[in-house]
Order: sequence, then structure tokens, then C-alpha cells
Amino acid sequence: MPIEDVEFARIDHHRALRQGFPEVIFGQGKTPEQVVAIAERIIGRGDTLLATRLSPEAREALSRSVGSVDGLEWCTFGRTAYRAAPGSPVRDTRGPVLIVTAGTADLPVAEEAALSARAFGNPVEQLRDVGVAGLHRLLASRDVLLDAAVVIVVAGMEGALPSVVGGLIAAPVIAVPTSIGYGASAGGFAALLGMLGSCAPGLTVVNIDNGFGAAAAASRINLLPLA
Amino acid sequence: MPIEDVEFARIDHHRALRQGFPEVIFGQGKTPEQVVAIAERIIGRGDTLLATRLSPEAREALSRSVGSVDGLEWCTFGRTAYRAAPGSPVRDTRGPVLIVTAGTADLPVAEEAALSARAFGNPVEQLRDVGVAGLHRLLASRDVLLDAAVVIVVAGMEGALPSVVGGLIAAPVIAVPTSIGYGASAGGFAALLGMLGSCAPGLTVVNIDNGFGAAAAASRINLLPLA
Amino acid sequence: MPIEDVEFARIDHHRALRQGFPEVIFGQGKTPEQVVAIAERIIGRGDTLLATRLSPEAREALSRSVGSVDGLEWCTFGRTAYRAAPGSPVRDTRGPVLIVTAGTADLPVAEEAALSARAFGNPVEQLRDVGVAGLHRLLASRDVLLDAAVVIVVAGMEGALPSVVGGLIAAPVIAVPTSIGYGASAGGFAALLGMLGSCAPGLTVVNIDNGFGAAAAASRINLLPLA
Amino acid sequence: MPIEDVEFARIDHHRALRQGFPEVIFGQGKTPEQVVAIAERIIGRGDTLLATRLSPEAREALSRSVGSVDGLEWCTFGRTAYRAAPGSPVRDTRGPVLIVTAGTADLPVAEEAALSARAFGNPVEQLRDVGVAGLHRLLASRDVLLDAAVVIVVAGMEGALPSVVGGLIAAPVIAVPTSIGYGASAGGFAALLGMLGSCAPGLTVVNIDNGFGAAAAASRINLLPLA
Amino acid sequence: MPIEDVEFARIDHHRALRQGFPEVIFGQGKTPEQVVAIAERIIGRGDTLLATRLSPEAREALSRSVGSVDGLEWCTFGRTAYRAAPGSPVRDTRGPVLIVTAGTADLPVAEEAALSARAFGNPVEQLRDVGVAGLHRLLASRDVLLDAAVVIVVAGMEGALPSVVGGLIAAPVIAVPTSIGYGASAGGFAALLGMLGSCAPGLTVVNIDNGFGAAAAASRINLLPLA
Amino acid sequence: MPIEDVEFARIDHHRALRQGFPEVIFGQGKTPEQVVAIAERIIGRGDTLLATRLSPEAREALSRSVGSVDGLEWCTFGRTAYRAAPGSPVRDTRGPVLIVTAGTADLPVAEEAALSARAFGNPVEQLRDVGVAGLHRLLASRDVLLDAAVVIVVAGMEGALPSVVGGLIAAPVIAVPTSIGYGASAGGFAALLGMLGSCAPGLTVVNIDNGFGAAAAASRINLLPLA
Amino acid sequence: MPIEDVEFARIDHHRALRQGFPEVIFGQGKTPEQVVAIAERIIGRGDTLLATRLSPEAREALSRSVGSVDGLEWCTFGRTAYRAAPGSPVRDTRGPVLIVTAGTADLPVAEEAALSARAFGNPVEQLRDVGVAGLHRLLASRDVLLDAAVVIVVAGMEGALPSVVGGLIAAPVIAVPTSIGYGASAGGFAALLGMLGSCAPGLTVVNIDNGFGAAAAASRINLLPLA
Amino acid sequence: MPIEDVEFARIDHHRALRQGFPEVIFGQGKTPEQVVAIAERIIGRGDTLLATRLSPEAREALSRSVGSVDGLEWCTFGRTAYRAAPGSPVRDTRGPVLIVTAGTADLPVAEEAALSARAFGNPVEQLRDVGVAGLHRLLASRDVLLDAAVVIVVAGMEGALPSVVGGLIAAPVIAVPTSIGYGASAGGFAALLGMLGSCAPGLTVVNIDNGFGAAAAASRINLLPLA
Repeated sequence: MPIEDVEFARIDHHRALRQGFPEVIFGQGKTPEQVVAIAERIIGRGDTLLATRLSPEAREALSRSVGSVDGLEWCTFGRTAYRAAPGSPVRDTRGPVLIVTAGTADLPVAEEAALSARAFGNPVEQLRDVGVAGLHRLLASRDVLLDAAVVIVVAGMEGALPSVVGGLIAAPVIAVPTSIGYGASAGGFAALLGMLGSCAPGLTVVNIDNGFGAAAAASRINLLPLA
Repeated sequence: MPIEDVEFARIDHHRALRQGFPEVIFGQGKTPEQVVAIAERIIGRGDTLLATRLSPEAREALSRSVGSVDGLEWCTFGRTAYRAAPGSPVRDTRGPVLIVTAGTADLPVAEEAALSARAFGNPVEQLRDVGVAGLHRLLASRDVLLDAAVVIVVAGMEGALPSVVGGLIAAPVIAVPTSIGYGASAGGFAALLGMLGSCAPGLTVVNIDNGFGAAAAASRINLLPLA
Repeated sequence: MPIEDVEFARIDHHRALRQGFPEVIFGQGKTPEQVVAIAERIIGRGDTLLATRLSPEAREALSRSVGSVDGLEWCTFGRTAYRAAPGSPVRDTRGPVLIVTAGTADLPVAEEAALSARAFGNPVEQLRDVGVAGLHRLLASRDVLLDAAVVIVVAGMEGALPSVVGGLIAAPVIAVPTSIGYGASAGGFAALLGMLGSCAPGLTVVNIDNGFGAAAAASRINLLPLA
Repeated sequence: MPIEDVEFARIDHHRALRQGFPEVIFGQGKTPEQVVAIAERIIGRGDTLLATRLSPEAREALSRSVGSVDGLEWCTFGRTAYRAAPGSPVRDTRGPVLIVTAGTADLPVAEEAALSARAFGNPVEQLRDVGVAGLHRLLASRDVLLDAAVVIVVAGMEGALPSVVGGLIAAPVIAVPTSIGYGASAGGFAALLGMLGSCAPGLTVVNIDNGFGAAAAASRINLLPLA
Repeated sequence: MPIEDVEFARIDHHRALRQGFPEVIFGQGKTPEQVVAIAERIIGRGDTLLATRLSPEAREALSRSVGSVDGLEWCTFGRTAYRAAPGSPVRDTRGPVLIVTAGTADLPVAEEAALSARAFGNPVEQLRDVGVAGLHRLLASRDVLLDAAVVIVVAGMEGALPSVVGGLIAAPVIAVPTSIGYGASAGGFAALLGMLGSCAPGLTVVNIDNGFGAAAAASRINLLPLA
Repeated sequence: MPIEDVEFARIDHHRALRQGFPEVIFGQGKTPEQVVAIAERIIGRGDTLLATRLSPEAREALSRSVGSVDGLEWCTFGRTAYRAAPGSPVRDTRGPVLIVTAGTADLPVAEEAALSARAFGNPVEQLRDVGVAGLHRLLASRDVLLDAAVVIVVAGMEGALPSVVGGLIAAPVIAVPTSIGYGASAGGFAALLGMLGSCAPGLTVVNIDNGFGAAAAASRINLLPLA
Repeated sequence: MPIEDVEFARIDHHRALRQGFPEVIFGQGKTPEQVVAIAERIIGRGDTLLATRLSPEAREALSRSVGSVDGLEWCTFGRTAYRAAPGSPVRDTRGPVLIVTAGTADLPVAEEAALSARAFGNPVEQLRDVGVAGLHRLLASRDVLLDAAVVIVVAGMEGALPSVVGGLIAAPVIAVPTSIGYGASAGGFAALLGMLGSCAPGLTVVNIDNGFGAAAAASRINLLPLA
Repeated sequence: MPIEDVEFARIDHHRALRQGFPEVIFGQGKTPEQVVAIAERIIGRGDTLLATRLSPEAREALSRSVGSVDGLEWCTFGRTAYRAAPGSPVRDTRGPVLIVTAGTADLPVAEEAALSARAFGNPVEQLRDVGVAGLHRLLASRDVLLDAAVVIVVAGMEGALPSVVGGLIAAPVIAVPTSIGYGASAGGFAALLGMLGSCAPGLTVVNIDNGFGAAAAASRINLLPLA
């Protein structure tokens, strides 16, 4: 092969926040070999590992390579991996970050948000399958909603759930549209536009499927400054 | 003026249904003189009058011309006018058509739907200002929802209300997106896409701001055939 | 594999209506194993099975697993499977649901609508290959059109067929745009926009390719309440 | 006013065909003074005058200036004016150009096409208000359709009429989408996309509202070469 | 006039937050009479007044009506008016809300944000005309950036400023795209898409021109709960 | 496999013209088995065969099945196959159909047009690789352009070639945008919009990549009626 | 009026280049009073004046205020005004900037480019009305094209002219799409996309109607550094 | 196989400039065999070889075929190959072409630009990973920026980097949007629109991912004419 031997990838500095946040491996578009090489370097240095958007091939490779390292965790779908740096200090926060999910199909994005939020130092809680076509399930969990310091709402299709949540609580609400849907609502644009035009005041929105970004935004709000 | 004197407008046949439905004056793009001339002809024949999308100028002119005719009604915003044909038979229906509106700004479209539905022979009820950011108002009216034969839900912005209503009842639900909103949700497309992608099964949708069309669709469902 | 053993999928509650309607397996995005596991659980409980959007792999797996169960039916294209719950009561309806299809390529969506409508308890009839470029075939079937309680019209390309049907009958017409087409009409948007802007009054529209949704909407209209 | 006195406008050469076709004044974006000055120059030279897209102000001005010239004609809406060059030779053609219009609101575009086609030397016939929601009117005129050498079909909303016409005849069919419609079909894009994706083979399409262009295309087909 | 005398407008409840936040008059689409009537009612009750998106006519009328009331303030452009309820308690906050503006043309949106944020109880600071084509001005104000509890960044055109700000600080950053621009960047979509796709992690976005929404979101973050 | 044995495909009637035109197999979306079965039936009946949009698999299968039939022809790229019905009458035409192609990458669409035009009975000529960035090649072929009865111009990217050709000749010009291009001009929309907005009067346009449709349109113009 | 007396506008620093370029008054969105006040300040300081996108009202006001100042020039349409700073040094350049315009309607944008390029210190030449539907006019001016140091090509509709020019010369070509056109090519997007997808290598593009930006880009190329 | 033996591909003349520039193999859409055959012919003639957009298969094939030819170079990613014609004269230029890249993911486009610019005869320098979320890295390289004769800025996501660079220097800046990003910024449109709407004056833009085009544009500026 004529390809020169160059450093094929850099650790994705520009996704990392500046103060006490871990470096992040954004898996999309990286080969399994690249993901493994970066992860081994991070773990070798004793740093916190957070890897998102892992392809099935990448997670197999990562599992073979660092799967037995102490404290490594995977999200339910295996798309996100996390391991806290040994001895990393506990961050003080305003309270729990609550991740609310509309439908089963939105869960992979919610899991990316959840593990990312934990990697950034937040306590995380989840509320699942509380879409607006069956309101009673959401209303039955009002206490959990009111206890959260920040709420991330993950929804595809018509993207209506953040409006309902935003109408029930006064805490910050970050809406994550997902690319779930088909036909005229394919790709997440219906959800994105709906969330931007919400009738509930003070919602904010991140890019489609950007669970990581929502977790980073929640951390900007929730983490107390390092003393 | 060099314009030849032609018959400037036809009564809008292709918006009229075929069986027992009134002819309709679709006001958009017609001059006040045109609207008045058609309305006078309809009333002179003793037919049912329904005029929609009237401009302020057209409704002034119409008011001066046929305003004192017995039984003429206007919607709250004066954009729609209706007068039943004297002696027109009462239609048998499955029950009331309920028109549910999310916000104040959606009311003109809801009024077009309401008066059109009455003109087609339906009993009409309304539920207003029950947007999803304040769910308790909708939930407090669950009885009215359950009593309806057909529900028309009018909403702009994120267009979430039909999903919630569709999750609460089993009757037919017709969603009308409105062009209310600004920025990324301007023009009604966010609401339209949201309604098409709803997570509640069996919703149907009409064009943006098409209160008349929703009423016509409700009538196709609700009117029992003429004996 | 590092994936934790979680309940990988839930039965898609939010696609199910609330009163007497079956639970539905929405196959898109589910693995064959997931589809089979849910189907076996439903059949084990003696409930009605309806599975839509099955991939070729999923239908092979489903066929091996529950293919010999009594009363299991497949649509022509094998994308939809249905089995009535043994002893499930017959629903009273207003009449037949007629599914009208413009072209051969629209048939998979029409089949999803047909089997779904039957699963919900409707008698179903079909009229195929009656696109607007050959009107005589549609006009020759006028009697079938007039006998229907609800008509579902499935069409891609320019989406003109619902307008023509809507001009011929007074019953409810539900238009389903399909993603058939290429170039400027790819993806179903030309058909969707055409149906929303139809010159025939009182048409309603569901999402692109949403045969299931059209059947659910027809059932909201056609099923008489359980006594 | 600081504006220098320059030649404010040129006669719109690049809308004129090369062989025996008149120069055309495209009125959109021109002031009444500009339109009048060009028209007077054309008539002074004894050339054929064709002026399209005239604003109300421009047609008043034009009427005052050249309104009494022998043989000047206006379309019904006064947006197009035409006067044959005195002594201009009659062109040999393949037959009549038939202009078919879906709805009343599409007539201004149809009139632009009609007068333009006559200005180019074609015999012109018209068929109006034959939209697809009332098929019987179109079918009743099948003879006129079959006699045409070229058919121009003008339609807005869902743009379905050209497909139906194209299925009935073998002559060339030129489809003109119009900007008639509102909401999701506003601006003519639904009609344009529908016509491009027609299921009838061999239709061709021109730009939205481009009645002039359709007439020019019809003339390229219909005019026999000058001997 | 045939319009019935109805209550023409409701105070826009669904833009108000639930705990201690003022009611808001959203001026867009309201007549001057409507704005004045609502404002007088609010002031008569001794409540906090916040009126946004005032037309020139509405602000003239409002100025004549309540202009001399003690403590009434206007934003620089007169589009937003604010008066604290006499004796309204001071809210405890995390710190100042900083509003950063890219260009002069973005100022009206920034002013809506500024006065809204003050009305909600936040101390507000501003940094103006620090667009990315002249970085030195932004970098010279780094101290002000680092002192803010929440930063709202208002930018049109390419919408690049929030990315730069987000890279400099760890506090929450709320990006507001504005409709400033022309041609391919008209209407604010270029700025909106740019902000959603920012390479700086943890930015959140509100609708185009939604200064009010950004202030409401900042308040959800910044206000400490009422004791 | 649970799929019922149904007639899997119909011969695509609605792409066939009504008078003397062959039936057409539109290969896109059909399996090789389906294409072969239809082709064998057509050849068995002694009819004219025209098959377009053949996948590599379909053309292999078709070649094995009917490849040795007398008179079968393939386009250069093997995507289109044609065999005249033995003894089919020669059609009288106005003259040659000329197919002009901008770039090498547009050739597959041009070939579909060429073989289709021949199948419909037209003499066909071609002019290749005469894009507007090298005008001299086009200008050197002016004689061929002037001799054509109908010109089909196939171009992707900016779609400028039809405007140039339309400015050189008076014959009918049918523009075919192709999906050649990438980035902002991907998918053929830049070419389509450019052709619709051409400054040359009287161009008409067909759908993106629709070489077949352009040939059908040319045939509507060029074929003289059967005596 | 309740508006506070603030400095209503800043001189638009971020449209000015850094080295020896004049400050620019971007007139769009500014009141006549604002334009005049800034212009008087600039002229009072003895600086170079360049004012673009002037409304009719603004140019009347500007004419009354500074119209008699020595050396003030207006573009043909009065939308742009320019006055060199007295004693401003002549800039050395690579040669003439040639501005090529497709149609009459594109001239206002070309004039903005021409006067801006002169204000920046470039010798400017123009070639007008050389659209691609009449190639001979462009080809007759080949010498002027070959002599230019930089060519700015201004075109609306299909935007084909830059491709043709780019194929004739080796100098830098800057393409300016204009918002000329209607229907599917309205707003300049067809021209913009066409220019971005040009088959001529090495063209660059600026925003729709951005004559000023093209002149600034040409100046970056053409001006030799100040000694 | 029934495909006739034709010359399967032409060397892509219309991507080559006219004076002293090499012919270019545009790899996208060509088979490995086609790429190899053209490359061998070019090298056999002793001409300069430049091949872009090579698929992994094409570069393997090309490496096997001409990989050992003296002086052949590959870009880091193997998508572009280049070999100067032996004895080809050195071109005189204005100075170095600097290629600035925002993020790691934009590098393949930057490499296409770099090798193309070298193939056209320019000295090339690069500045990598200097995205706007970490400004200090860009500011630390100000000297390199100021020394460049032409700057090509390659950026995806929000496309903000060219605005920042354009504000720092007076040399020509060519912006290349890349298709890097996902969700609402997928496909490069956010970056493209942002670059077109930049607040820095005089930026020009090429198509998404068009590194080759940017290099060709830079060469039009930078190469001095052959003596």
C-alpha cells in the first residue's frame, strides 16, 4: 500500500472542555484500529476514557483490547464506553441530571448522553418510554422530574416531549432531537424544528442525535467549579 | 382600462362536495367586488352561503351588502361568513365535531373550521388554549374529548397537541397545522412534519391553515347519508 | 461481547390504540432475534399478532419460529404478518375499507395497510393499478368505490389519484403518499405535497409509506364501539 | 436626483427566438415608463408587439399610450398585450395549440400562454376549469383534446391534470405548474414536482407560472419553417 | 363591522414560566389596542410588565398610555418594554448573565434578551460588536467572559461567534441565531445550522431571533429557587 | 419462505404510450427473475422489447436468457436493451432526434434516451462531450444541430448546455438534468433548477436522469400519426 | 417617543478590509438619517466614501446632503455612491478588473461591484448583456476577456455564464449569482448551485447579489501591497 | 456479457485548465481498471499525472500498476496521486499557497487541495487542526498566514474558520466547506451557507469537498503567466 505512515488520528481535542473534563474518542468515521490505539494510550496514561459512536466492529476490537480493564463500563447498546481515571476526584454538582426518553428507539442517544454525563462527573437518573401519546406514564413520575437539577429530553418523531416537560418544571431543559422516524419526519428535522419552535419558554436544543453534546451542556450548568 | 368585461370569477365548484354540501366562496385572491357578487347570487337563489378567507376589505363589503340578511353569522375574526339555506334539512350525524386549539394565535384557523363544519351540518364544540406546555387544562376536559364523534386539533409551533389528544381517545383525529411561529418554525412546516410523524397511531393531517379542509374531512366521517 | 444483558426491546406500546386493538411489532430497526422474541411472547399469551416492516432476515426468522402456528397470514411481499387472537370477537364496522393503489410499485405499502386494517377488525377490499394516466380502469370500478365505508388511496410519483377518487365519492378518503419515484420526485415528497394541496375537499393525509397509520386512521372511523 | 441619464432598459433580446419571432417586453421589474418607451419604439418600427407580466400601473400607462392603436389586444386580465405587425405573414402550423386549465385561479397564466402562442403565429383554443376532482368535464371534451397539435396544461395545487391529459392523447403535452396554492403547496413546488414525476410518459415541464415559455416551446414544435 | 365583540386576546400564559416569573405580552401579531389593553390591566394589578416584539405603532400607543408610569424602561430600539412590579422581591442568582453580540444588526435581538433577562431577575451585562472577523476585540474582553454565570451569544450571518466563545469558557453558552443576512444566508438558517453543528462542545441553541427564549433559558439556569 | 405465490409483477403499462408504442420494462426495483420473466413473455408474443434501468445482475440474467435472440441490442453501458418486433412497421418521422451530451458522466442517461428513441421509431444521432466549458466543440457541430427535428440535451452539474443549444436553433429542445455532481450540486437539483430558469425561451424539461421520458416526449413531437 | 437617544449606528467596521481600504456604509436596513449622518462624518474626516445598497429614500437624502461634494459619483441605478479621499494614493494593481454581466436585470449587482472595485483602487471595465443564449456576443469580446487581471461574472437564472467564461481564460474568475428569476429559480439559488457545480475548474463564488463582496475578493487578488 | 467494446472513459478534459496545466483523472465513479488504463497512458506519454478521489480499490490497482514509477507521490490518505512530468518547467508564482484545516476530519479534502496545488506548480504549506474552538493555535501561527500568497481554508461543521482567517490577512482567501458533520449540519450545507454569509469581506467559496477546485482557483491567482 502506498499510504505513508503518518499519525492517522488525533485525540479529538476540540470535543473536550477545558477544565477537568476527559478527552473523548468520537468513534464515527474512525477505524477499529484507530479507536483501540487511542484508547490504549489514554488508559496507559491513567486518564479517564470516554468513547462514543462506536461501530459494532470498533466495540468488538475495543472489548478485546481493554475489555478486562478494571472499571470499564459500556452503555446498554455498546456504542459508548467509559472508564473513570483511577483516583479522579468527585465533582461537586447542583444535583442529578435526569435523562427522559420518549420511545424505545431513542434509547441509544439517551445512553450516549447518560454515560457521557457520568463521565463528566454528574449523578445521572433516567426516565424511559414516556412519550406524549401516553401521558399518564410521564405524569406518574412528576416527583423525579421536580428533583432534577438539569433535564435532558431525548425524542424523535414529532419531538413534543420537551414542551410537555418544560411546562411541568422550572429547571433547565435541554432537548435532543433524534433521527428516529421515516418519511416526512426522517432524519430528525421534524423533531428539531418542533423543539426550536416549542411553546414552552426557555428550552434549548442541541444537534440531532447529539447525546454527547447534551451531556456536555448539562455539565456546563451542573458542575460546580473546581475549588 | 383595456380589460375586457368577462365573467371575472366562477363559484368555486371544485371545493364543493357532491352530496348536499353548500357551494363555498374561497375568499383568498378574490376582490371584494367579486366576493359580494357571488354571495348575492347565492343568497338570491336561496342557497346556503359559506365564505372563507375573507380579507378585511371583503368582509366590510360583504357586511354592507348582505349583512342584514336573516341568519347570517360571522366567525369571531370576521374571516368566515355563513348562512344556512332557509328550510335546509337538518343532517343526521354521528355526534359532535370537537375543535381543539393549542394557542390563541391558532384561533382564526379554528374558527374557519368551526363555521365550515356547522355549514356542512355538524354540531360543533370547541376547546381552546389547551397547549401541551400546560397539560392540566387539557386533562381537565377529558370528558368533552371522549364525547366527540370526530376531533379536529389545530396547532402551530411544534404541533404536539394532536399526538397527546390521539393518545387519549379512540375517535378519529384530524390534525391541522397552522402557520403560527417564527424563525425555524415559520410557515407551519415544523407543525406539519411533527403531525405527520406523530407517535400516536391513526392521526390524519390536512394542509397548513386548512380549517375548511378539516371540516370537510370531518363531515365525510360524521354525516350520515341522506335518506 | 461487552453488552450487558438488558431487555433489548419493548413491545411497541405507543403504536397501539387503547381499546381492543392489538399490540404491534414495528419491524424497522429491530433485529430478527428481537422480532421473534416479541412475537413468541405475544402468541404465547394468546394475543393478536401484527408485525410490520419486516426485513427479509426477520421474516425468515419469524417463519422458522412461528410459521406453522394456526391462522398465521403473510402479506404478498412478506413484510407484514398477522394472526388473530384465537376467539377474538368480531368487531362491528360501518362497512368495507377499500384500498386503492395507483401503481405496481405502491403495492407493498398497500399490503401493509390491508393486513393492518384486517388485524384491527375491518373487512378489506382492494382496487389495484388504477393510476391517473389510465383513467378508464378507475372509472370502470366506480361501484366498488361507492360501496366503501372508508377509502385508503396509496400513490407515489405525482400523488394525483386521491384527488380523483375524492372527486368521485363522499366517503372519507385517507391518502398515503409512497416513496416511489426518482429524481425530483424521490422519497415521496412530491406525492405528499400534492396530496396536501389537493383540489378535492376533505382529503386527509398520513406520513409517507405509512400504510399502518392509514389503517389505524380508517379503524378510528370504521369500527363501531365495543358494546 | 443624482442618477445619471442612461438608457434604462434594453428590449429583452434574450427572450426572443431567432427566426421570425417577435421581440418581447417582459414586464416584471420594469417601470411603466420603461414599458411604454419600449412599446412605442416597437410599434413605431411597425414590428409585432408582445408584452407580458404587466403590472396594473404598466397596463394603465400602456393603455393611455398605445391603447388606440389598430389591432391591439389584451388578455382577459390585462397582464399581456399583443399587436401583430401589420402585414406580418401568416405562419404555417401543424394545427391548433390547445391550452387546458385546471382551475379559475390558474387562468392568468393560461392567458399569458394563449396570447403569446397567438403572437408567435399559432391558432389557439382553450379548455377551462377541468380540474381532476371533477373528471367528467374533462372527459366530455375528449374530441377537442384529440384534435390539438400541441397541448399546454396549466395547473397549480397538486398538478395532477397533465398526467390525466397525457394518458388520453398522443400529441406533445407541455405542463405549466402555477404558484396557486397555500401552506405546503404554496409557490408552485408541489405542482412542479408532481409534473416532473408524472406517471404518464413523455410529458415535459416549464418553470412555475411560465405561460410565455410554454407558448414558445409549443411554437418550436408547431410552427413549420418559413419557406 | 360584523365582528362580534369578544375578548380579543388572552395574556400569553404559555410563554410564562411557572414560578415567580412575569406574564409576557408577545407583541408580534397583536394590534396596538390589544397590547395597550393588556399592559394597562397588568400595571393596574401591580404586576411586572414585560412586552416584546412591539411594532412601531404599538410602542407609540403604549408610550402614550403607560409611558409615564414610574420605573418603565424601554430597550434601545423600543421593541421591548419592562417595568418591575413595585416591591417585587430580588431574586438570588448564580451571577451575571452576559449577552455577547456579533454585529450591529444583531442588537435588536440582543436587547430583547437583555431586558427579558432583567425582567426575570438576572443582573445583565453586554459585550457588543465582537464578531469573529475582528477577533482582537473579543479576546480583549476575556475577563468579562470568564466572570459570567451564563453567556448568551447573539449572531447572524455565519453564526460562528458561539463556537469561539464556547472554546474560551466553561460556563453555559446559549446561542441565538439571528435573521440577519441576505442571499444564501437569509432568514437565519445558516447561523442556526452553524450553531447546531458547532465544534465547541456543550453549546445549546434557541430559535432564530428568540432573544426572549434565550433569556428564559438563562433564567432556568441562573435563578436560585425561591426560598 | 412464507410468501404466497402471486403474480410478482405486471408489465409496466403506465409507462407505455397508447398508439403503436412498445411496452417497457422499467428495471429499477425489479429482481433479475422478474425482468427475465417479463422479457421472455414479450419476446414470445413477438412484441417489441424495451428494458431500461437494468442492474448489473439483471443484465447478466437477461443476457443468459434472451441474449442470443436475433436483433437484440444493448446500449453501451448495458443498462438498456432493445429488440424491435419482427416485421414492425417503420414509423414516419419529422427527422432525426439528436441527443447532445455535456460530459462523459452523463452518457448512461443519454444512452437510455438514444435506445428508447430508436425503440419508439425515431432515427437517432448523438453529439457527445460538448460541455459549455469548451464551447468550440459545440460550435464546430452547428450543422448537426440545425439538421435535427428534435434535440434532447443531457447535462448535469450546472445544467447550462440546453440554454446554449436553445440559443442556436429553433427546433424543440428537451432538457434532461442528470444526477451527476457532488456537494451542493449533488442529485441533479442544480441542473434541474438551472434548466427550468433558462434564459433561452421555449426549453422544456423532464425529471432528473429521465432519458426514457425525454425520448417519449421527443416521439410525441417527431412521430407522424399512423396512417 | 420613548426610545433613548443612543448612538444609532456604527460605521460598519467589519465590512472593511484592514490595509488601505475605505470604510463602507452598508445601506440595507439603515434609515436615510443614519446613512447621511455616517456619510457626513466620513467626508468631514476627508476619508474615502463608499455606500452600497441605498434605498431610494436614502439616496435622495444623501443627494441632498453631500450631493454637491466634489468628486462624488453614483452608479447608474443610484444604489451605490463613491467618493475618493482627496489625495488618496493610487494603488498599484495587476491589471483591469473586468465585470461581465449576463442580462439587463443583473446590472444593479454589476454596478455595485464596479463602483466598489473602483473605490478599492482597481481599474474597472465592463462587458454587458452577453448571456449564454446568444453566445456570439461573448465570443466577439474575447480580447477584452483575455486582457483582464481578474474577471467578475454576474448572472442570474441558470448561472451558466461563469462556466463559459472560465473555459475561455486562465485568469481568476469570481462568480456572483443574482436573485433574478422567478418560480423554481427565484431568489438566486439555481444560479448559486449552478456556479458551485460548474464544470469549469477553479471558479469561485460569493453570496447571492454580493457585488461588493466580489469586488473585495477581486481586490485581494489584484491590489499590489502598499510599499 | 453483452456490453459492446467501447472506449469506456475519456480523460477528463473539462477539468483541465488550458495553459500548461496537467490533465486530471477524477476518480469518483470510475472503475479501478479505468483509472489504471488512463494513468498508464498519461505516464506513457511522459505527461504529468494527477488522480483525485480514488477509491481504496482504485488506489490498490494504481499502486500495483504504476506504484514504482519514479517520482510518484500519494497524499496521506491515498486518495490523490501525483507525478510531475519529467523535465516539466518550474512555474513562477506569487508565493506559497497555504492550506489551513479546521479539524482532523477535514484533512482528506485538504490533502486533495495540497497535492493538486503542487501538481499545478505552486509551493504549498499547511496549517492543521486550528479550529475556532481553540483560537490560540491559529493566533500562534499568524506569521505563516501573513506570508501566504493565497490561503485555502478547509472547514466543516459551522464553517467559521475562513471568517476568522479573512479578518487576519489581506491576501485572497478561498473557503472549502467539507461534508464533515452529522444531523442538522450533515453534508456540508451548514458550512457552505456560513462561508457564503461570512462577515469578513472578500472571501470566495468553492463547492463542498472540492479541494481540487480550490487548488485550481488558487493557481489561477498564483501562477505567473508562462513567458
